Amino acid sequence: MIYLPLGGAGEIGMNAYVYGYGAQDKERLILVDLGVTFSDMDTSPGVDLIFPDITWLAENKDRLEAVFITHGHEDHVGAVGHYWDKLGVPVYARAFTANLARHKMADRGQPEEEIKIVSPWPQMTRAGPFSVGFLPISHSIPESAALVIDTPAGRVIHSGDFKLDETPVVGEPFDPDLWADVCKDGVKALICDSTNVFSRTPGRSEASVGPEIVDLVTNAPNMVVATTFASNVARVKTLAEAGERAGRSICLMGRAMRRMIEASIQTGVLTSFPKVVSPEDARTIPRENLMLLVTGSQGERRAASAQLARGKYNGIQLKEGDLFLFSSKTIPGNERGVIRIMNQFSEMGVDIVDDESGRYHVSGHANRPDLERLQDIVNPQMVIPNHGEHRHLREHARLTLERGRGSVVAVNGTMVDITGDAPMVCGFVETGRTYLDGATQIGAMDGIVRDRIRMALNGHVVVTVILDEEDEPLGEAWCEVKGLPEQGRSQAPLVDVLEEDLSQFLGRASEKTLGDDDKLEMELRRIARNTCNDEIGKKPEVTMIISRLR
Amino acid sequence: MIYLPLGGAGEIGMNAYVYGYGAQDKERLILVDLGVTFSDMDTSPGVDLIFPDITWLAENKDRLEAVFITHGHEDHVGAVGHYWDKLGVPVYARAFTANLARHKMADRGQPEEEIKIVSPWPQMTRAGPFSVGFLPISHSIPESAALVIDTPAGRVIHSGDFKLDETPVVGEPFDPDLWADVCKDGVKALICDSTNVFSRTPGRSEASVGPEIVDLVTNAPNMVVATTFASNVARVKTLAEAGERAGRSICLMGRAMRRMIEASIQTGVLTSFPKVVSPEDARTIPRENLMLLVTGSQGERRAASAQLARGKYNGIQLKEGDLFLFSSKTIPGNERGVIRIMNQFSEMGVDIVDDESGRYHVSGHANRPDLERLQDIVNPQMVIPNHGEHRHLREHARLTLERGRGSVVAVNGTMVDITGDAPMVCGFVETGRTYLDGATQIGAMDGIVRDRIRMALNGHVVVTVILDEEDEPLGEAWCEVKGLPEQGRSQAPLVDVLEEDLSQFLGRASEKTLGDDDKLEMELRRIARNTCNDEIGKKPEVTMIISRLR
Repeated sequence: MIYLPLGGAGEIGMNAYVYGYGAQDKERLILVDLGVTFSDMDTSPGVDLIFPDITWLAENKDRLEAVFITHGHEDHVGAVGHYWDKLGVPVYARAFTANLARHKMADRGQPEEEIKIVSPWPQMTRAGPFSVGFLPISHSIPESAALVIDTPAGRVIHSGDFKLDETPVVGEPFDPDLWADVCKDGVKALICDSTNVFSRTPGRSEASVGPEIVDLVTNAPNMVVATTFASNVARVKTLAEAGERAGRSICLMGRAMRRMIEASIQTGVLTSFPKVVSPEDARTIPRENLMLLVTGSQGERRAASAQLARGKYNGIQLKEGDLFLFSSKTIPGNERGVIRIMNQFSEMGVDIVDDESGRYHVSGHANRPDLERLQDIVNPQMVIPNHGEHRHLREHARLTLERGRGSVVAVNGTMVDITGDAPMVCGFVETGRTYLDGATQIGAMDGIVRDRIRMALNGHVVVTVILDEEDEPLGEAWCEVKGLPEQGRSQAPLVDVLEEDLSQFLGRASEKTLGDDDKLEMELRRIARNTCNDEIGKKPEVTMIISRLR
Repeated sequence: MIYLPLGGAGEIGMNAYVYGYGAQDKERLILVDLGVTFSDMDTSPGVDLIFPDITWLAENKDRLEAVFITHGHEDHVGAVGHYWDKLGVPVYARAFTANLARHKMADRGQPEEEIKIVSPWPQMTRAGPFSVGFLPISHSIPESAALVIDTPAGRVIHSGDFKLDETPVVGEPFDPDLWADVCKDGVKALICDSTNVFSRTPGRSEASVGPEIVDLVTNAPNMVVATTFASNVARVKTLAEAGERAGRSICLMGRAMRRMIEASIQTGVLTSFPKVVSPEDARTIPRENLMLLVTGSQGERRAASAQLARGKYNGIQLKEGDLFLFSSKTIPGNERGVIRIMNQFSEMGVDIVDDESGRYHVSGHANRPDLERLQDIVNPQMVIPNHGEHRHLREHARLTLERGRGSVVAVNGTMVDITGDAPMVCGFVETGRTYLDGATQIGAMDGIVRDRIRMALNGHVVVTVILDEEDEPLGEAWCEVKGLPEQGRSQAPLVDVLEEDLSQFLGRASEKTLGDDDKLEMELRRIARNTCNDEIGKKPEVTMIISRLR
């Protein structure tokens, strides 16, 4: 039996884990989760979404039995619509997750019915030599499940993202007795979430934030706006109920916020939720009687919170004395965006409350003591850390080894044999990232995004030269610059200096050079870069266009 | 008397504060601090440094008497070399700060002797109607000083960056009695650092980290590497002494690290520091007897820590079981870079310790209770918050008003009359940012950087068309793309589809259109963008080059 992460091991995001059972290189396979991760200006400007590279899996799709989705977060289900046609197998998920996954299939024109709804444990789904059950576990989204993966080689538990919350507000509480029962006959391997391995105190329950939020909302004199991840339905409910208790009308703003509550109600995850008003109606309600629940806790520029920070959104505008609550943690890398919004609100006189005090947010992931507790309950022969950067996986493996169980740091592409008593690395496959860039998929390493980054850092010079039938320059070189200063050291326009230097070269260039595109291009490029360096202290990207009339 | 922030109020970075005394619009002026801030990919790709826009001050330089620098951090002194020639007045600083400032003048070919060394309080420097004294205060760099600014209108205290540290390891402890004495005859205004206004517990002393660091370094079995801001000389000394106590040779790596220690010794700030070895010698020392102190606590790509994370630096390479200590806090926005390094070290098997526990780093700024304490000691009529984003200034002003003193949120460009009992906004001047971009200064708003960001997000298409003497197209349109996928929906090369669509248009374009550069350009640009949108779902930047043989 093998375990092979294709995404999510060595990074937080784009989870995709393969399990295999059978003779070497002929294993029958299942895939657990198929997520995305998000781009940033530093490494992937202009990219819309980032996917794990599943080339290996697509090449072996005749061996693939099914896909199982643990829960509905984007980093676990986000690629289903984009990648389904490369795999062509049924996708199993619990009702709430399936609801979200079907939207994703529909968005990409894929068959929604390939998303199959399964009931939680003790139901098991057969997929070749595998039998897979969805064992409920608490997390920051409804119906999160660990997977119980049985093969003739034994039982494996794939934790999915989880916390040990016995009062999760929405959905099933963590049930240690049920878990102990599932694991009592022996578990070969626990493949386990590592996100919070560096947090040394036990995680807090979702229920603990309720009273604090009620206090805050009740005492707010004017309008209250709160943001959290829309998928954190328990939190959205807690916020809405706090508003209701304070006599406020609740208005949901942002597409994801509405879609998540809708999905929760459709699938029976939410059996009660305060009555909500439309943004149109909200405008007519006195602000001290209003509470908005909005998307954009990470400072996303197009989300409701960012739009409110810039001015009006859906006809509503925040004012001096309103309260804005971030019932959320800022994910590393999103700080600048969040701080930008905070300052925009500050300029409006809006009071901002964030999670610095730890009162208005709890994490959805298991902390170190919780990881230890789960190991004790599951009592597996080995624990393989996943869902973490290298440092998380390493710490989690160390923790496991210290507690006398087998472990290994297996990053994306590492094939691990988990048949024996301890994990054994048995191979490597090519992995990486692919980008959704507008309407096309591009490789992370094929130079397209690298060129964009270079243009952003260095600017871009375009040089055109026209040569006549005799390879003689027709007129002078012509330059256009983009993203570069208009003039430099000589105080003359940069394009003039460039054209002068390039034309001078053309005037003295040999017949041989002028007749040879490659040589001419190389020389002109070198001159263009050097002239820019002399003038403005930058060596830009250069595009050369040599037109020949012959 | 007026106060006018040109930088640093409404942001953390590029501090520049003007004080004026005299008849309206004829005030004689002094400038306090002249700092820089740093670029990022999101807003300023390719930019080398960011400066406050001091156009207003340069236009009024006949009224400017002098510049005073509170301390040697880049956000307070970094622009001195670049801007001195625009101002042309003497620059006063204490010895250590002056040492750094002179390097900056020399780097830009400016006269070092214009940096004048002053002694701390009670020495006062006259500058027109102003008399300015440097009142020592603790911070995370040696010889930080508040300024005592006297005019006939009364005494103003400009706090500079500070904390209230009575055991600062290096430099003068905060002396509440001296401060009380300086302020006993009444202070009109306290202009005060706001960075940590949201931190609700009193700040901890620099001396508190020493024992923790000694413990950590003594118990490390292999090589120890530690990073912190090089300018935090007290911390560097604490780290070095911990290494020495553990029997380790100390090696400084990174230019800033060596320069800061050099400046500290030259100016007498450091009277003792463990003997250091060169990187060459370090290579011959057993790793368990070695401690490196390196630059790059913020993950900067070219600093020593990032280079060690990528492999060898100065012939030294970290190994399994070595310890890397971040004796520093990650500044918001730098998380990704720091995390990248942590994971690279994790891959090498290096153990990483950061400040999550709060044991190995303390802030250099006054927390909320410290701000309150300073207000009590100085007892000013008003407090004007500076050195903070809008949310910090607002909170600090609120805190002040609640305590019964006058205050105002004065962001960059806000001219405040501080002559009376309470601050009064009396005008606004244009401010903003200018960029050092390679060798030239460019405006933040003049479109150059905007074009770079657009190329990074959207890619760039270059279209060239040659028209003959009769305005007839000579051959077909020619396209080059940069930062775009090679092919899109039609599976043909993108440039082929572009050239086809553009050439078709040229074939059917009217004589009038072909004869009109603007019209032709507009049409071709539109077609190029639409074709790209159809093919690849992106609307790129387009550069059009129309060459006419006529």
